[in-house]
Amino acid sequence: MKFSVTVTLKKDVLDPQGKVVSQTLKNMGMSNLKQVRQGKFFEIDLNEKDDSKAHMQIKEMCEKLLANQIIEDFKISKKE
Amino acid sequence: MKFSVTVTLKKDVLDPQGKVVSQTLKNMGMSNLKQVRQGKFFEIDLNEKDDSKAHMQIKEMCEKLLANQIIEDFKISKKE
Repeated sequence: MKFSVTVTLKKDVLDPQGKVVSQTLKNMGMSNLKQVRQGKFFEIDLNEKDDSKAHMQIKEMCEKLLANQIIEDFKISKKE
Repeated sequence: MKFSVTVTLKKDVLDPQGKVVSQTLKNMGMSNLKQVRQGKFFEIDLNEKDDSKAHMQIKEMCEKLLANQIIEDFKISKKE
């Protein structure tokens, strides 16, 4: 069972990496750019048949390792 | 108009970062883990009303800056 996890900085946390990307794109001529925010992406393949069990486990991974919940949010979605 | 962009390594490209995450999770007791692959995530906010124009522009950003198409794939999706 495959899951996609995106970890993004919370709204009020500064994102210098995204700022640099945004500035670079603007310098390349993308003048209508409002904002870029960067995050992390994980594709996790689990050997687990039970849907809700797998989801719980992915959530645990996020909470314990993948995301720093003080400054980051995470989103889990199942892949077909 | 907001878009999400995920940039992932192509299937046959080694992903040492994902390997480390995978090994760490296994050491934490997640024995049914098959694979983890890591990628990048961008949330891009554009000042553009036209749907297809905006999509084209995001695609251009990916091709020119965000993704290295030799080893990476990218996926664009519109956010509500």
